[in-house]
Amino acid sequence: MHRTQGAPCPAKARTCPGFPESSWISGPPGEAPVPMTVGRGTPLGPGAEFDRIRGFLDGLSEAPGVRVGPGDDGAVLEDGTVLSSDLSIEGTHFRLDWVSPEEAGYRATAAALSDLAAMAARPLGVLVSVAVPAPGTLSAPIMAGVRAAAAAAGAPLLGGDLTRSPGPAVVDVMVVGRADPPLLRSGARPGDELWVTGTLGAAAAALEAWGAGRTPDPRARYAFCRPVPRIEEARWLVREAGARAGLDLSDGIAGDAAHLAAASGVGIELDAEALLQVAHRLPGETGDAALGAALRRALHGGEDFELLVVLPPGEGEARVEEFRRRFDLPLSPVGQVGVGHGVRLRPRGGAPPQPLSAGGWDHFATGQGGSELP
Amino acid sequence: MHRTQGAPCPAKARTCPGFPESSWISGPPGEAPVPMTVGRGTPLGPGAEFDRIRGFLDGLSEAPGVRVGPGDDGAVLEDGTVLSSDLSIEGTHFRLDWVSPEEAGYRATAAALSDLAAMAARPLGVLVSVAVPAPGTLSAPIMAGVRAAAAAAGAPLLGGDLTRSPGPAVVDVMVVGRADPPLLRSGARPGDELWVTGTLGAAAAALEAWGAGRTPDPRARYAFCRPVPRIEEARWLVREAGARAGLDLSDGIAGDAAHLAAASGVGIELDAEALLQVAHRLPGETGDAALGAALRRALHGGEDFELLVVLPPGEGEARVEEFRRRFDLPLSPVGQVGVGHGVRLRPRGGAPPQPLSAGGWDHFATGQGGSELP
Repeated sequence: MHRTQGAPCPAKARTCPGFPESSWISGPPGEAPVPMTVGRGTPLGPGAEFDRIRGFLDGLSEAPGVRVGPGDDGAVLEDGTVLSSDLSIEGTHFRLDWVSPEEAGYRATAAALSDLAAMAARPLGVLVSVAVPAPGTLSAPIMAGVRAAAAAAGAPLLGGDLTRSPGPAVVDVMVVGRADPPLLRSGARPGDELWVTGTLGAAAAALEAWGAGRTPDPRARYAFCRPVPRIEEARWLVREAGARAGLDLSDGIAGDAAHLAAASGVGIELDAEALLQVAHRLPGETGDAALGAALRRALHGGEDFELLVVLPPGEGEARVEEFRRRFDLPLSPVGQVGVGHGVRLRPRGGAPPQPLSAGGWDHFATGQGGSELP
Repeated sequence: MHRTQGAPCPAKARTCPGFPESSWISGPPGEAPVPMTVGRGTPLGPGAEFDRIRGFLDGLSEAPGVRVGPGDDGAVLEDGTVLSSDLSIEGTHFRLDWVSPEEAGYRATAAALSDLAAMAARPLGVLVSVAVPAPGTLSAPIMAGVRAAAAAAGAPLLGGDLTRSPGPAVVDVMVVGRADPPLLRSGARPGDELWVTGTLGAAAAALEAWGAGRTPDPRARYAFCRPVPRIEEARWLVREAGARAGLDLSDGIAGDAAHLAAASGVGIELDAEALLQVAHRLPGETGDAALGAALRRALHGGEDFELLVVLPPGEGEARVEEFRRRFDLPLSPVGQVGVGHGVRLRPRGGAPPQPLSAGGWDHFATGQGGSELP
C-alpha cells in the first residue's frame, strides 16, 4: 500500500538542489552544538527524550570486542553481529482498543526487525518476551503476530518467554543479525544526498485519527499495524548504491535526520517540496492546510519504519529506477548533506532554509506532536 | 554470603548413592511421559507455566544457522553465539516496596546474565530497555543497578532504551555471549551425578518473609537482591570437570531438574539429605519443621541462580576441593541421573524415592508454592 505514492521520478532530485552551506554553518541560533558522544557510542540528535537516553547511557566504558556501542540503531560486535531490542508497551506504543493483539505482536516484531534494516543486517533470529495480565486469550494472538512478522522477514524465532503483567501487555522483541559492513549513522559527508524509501506519515495519520476518536483511513491503519522492515532494500542500497549512512524512520524524519547529522558531524537540509512528494496523503485531503498536515506528519510522525539513507552524489538518481523495479517501492530524494550541524527545512517557494525542531516521538511528552499516543 | 553454608565435603556424595532404576522407569503413576520437543527446541519439564510456554513456542520451524533453538536457557547460533532475554516486571518479579530501584535493576541484569552462565558462555554484552511511569527518579537508579551487575560480570553495556510505562516499571535485559561448547540441558546420561553450587532457598526465604509482612533476614534479602551469575564457575566446570549438562536454578531445583530430565531423556533422583546440606537455614530455625521449610525452599524456591550441573561419575568428588579453593564457593552433590523420566526425591531415613512435583515458579499461579510474589 505504500507503493502507490511517493516520488519515483529521478527528476525529483532536481527539486532539492545544493544549498548555500554558508547560511547555516553556525546552526540554529541560540542552540549549543548538539552531538554528545557517550563512551564509544554514537551521538544522538537533540530532544528531551534523547537527553534522557544520553543520561541513561552515560558512563558506558569502551569495551573490547564491540565495534559500535550505544546510540546507533543496533550494537555491532567485532564479527559483524548486530543486536537490538525493542520494548512495546500497551498504552505507550499500542492500544488494544485500536489494534488487535495479533497486530500488536506483528508491529512490535517488525519494529525490532527494522533496526536490523537500519544497520543493513540480515536477520539471524528473533527472541520475544511477552507479559500479559492472564494466560491464554491474549498471548496466543500476540505470538501469532510475532511469528507472522518474523516469518515475513525470514527470521527464525529462537526463543521466548511468557510471564504475567499486573498491568499493561508488554511485548519485548530482541533481534540478532549480521552485517558486513553495517550501515551506520555516522558516515554522511557534505555533498551527499538524502533519500527515503516508500511514503512517510501514514502511521501518524492513523494515530491522529484514533486520537481524535475517528476511524483511521484503512491504508493509514495498515501502515501503522503492518510496517515492513526494509531489510533487503537496505542491503541493496549499501551493496549497489554505496549508501554511506542511514537509519530507519522511527521518530519522524525531522528527529531522525538530526540523529544522522549529530552522528556524522554534518548539517542536513530537508526540502519541503521533495518531502511533499513522499508524504502520505489522506483521501480527500486537498488545499494548503491538507498539504501542511501531510508535511507535518511526514516530518514529525513516528514509526513509518522506512529507510533514510545517505547516498554519494548522483548515486540515487542513477539507481532509482532499478530500485523501484526490484522492490516495487519508490526511492525518493528529500534533501542534502552539508557542513555544520543540525537540520534545516527549505520551505516551498524559495524562502531560505529554517532550523527545524526535532519534534518527533517523545514517549514521556504529553500532547506534543501529532503522533503521540494520547 | 552464600559461601558460609553448603556441603563442601566429598563424602556427601555417599549420601546419595545409586538408586534402583527399575523402581521408577515408568515415571510417576498417572502421568504421561513429559518431554515435548518444540521444533528444534529442547523439551521442557512439566508444569502449567511450561505447558503455556510450549504452546507459545509451538510451530517454530527449524532454521539454518541455529544450533540450539528454544527451550534451553539461551539460543545458540552456529558460531557459538548465545542469546537470551529476561523480562522483569514490577509486581510480578519485584516490588518497589520490597527492593530499591537500584536492586531491581541489579537483579534483573544478574538474572539475565545467569542464562549465559547456564550455557557456560562468556558475556559479550548487555542491552537493556527500561520503562517507567515518569522519567527521572526511577530510571536513574534502575540503570545504576543494571550497570553494576553488568560490570560485576565484565559485560559491556551495548545499548539501551528508555520509554514510558502507563503502569508497572519494566526492565528488559538482553544478553549475548559466546560458548564453545555450550552447556546444554540435554547431555545428562544415566549414572551421571548432579551437583549444585552455593546454597539454595535463600531468595525464597526473603520472598516468604516479605509476603508475610515481615522484614527478611539480611542474608536472605541480599541473596534475592544481588544474585551472582556463576559464569566463571560454569565455564570451569565444563572445561575442568567435563560437565555434561546444566542450567541455572531459576525455578527451584525440583522444576529445573525436571527440565534437565526432559531435555536429556533421563530420570533424576534428588536426595533430601544432600539437599538439606545445601539448603539455606534461617537464623534460629531449628527442629524438624524448620528443616522441612528449608528443604521446601531449596526444592521449590525460585531465583537462587546457582548452577545445577551434571558431572560424569566421580568427577565432582575429584574436583570439589579445587572448585572451592578457586571460587570460594561450595560445590555439592544433590542427586543422580538414571534411566526413565521425571524427578523423584529420596526422603531422609531410607524410605523409597517419591515422585516430586515441579512446584517451582509459575508467574500466573496465585498462592502456589512459597516463592511466588503474592
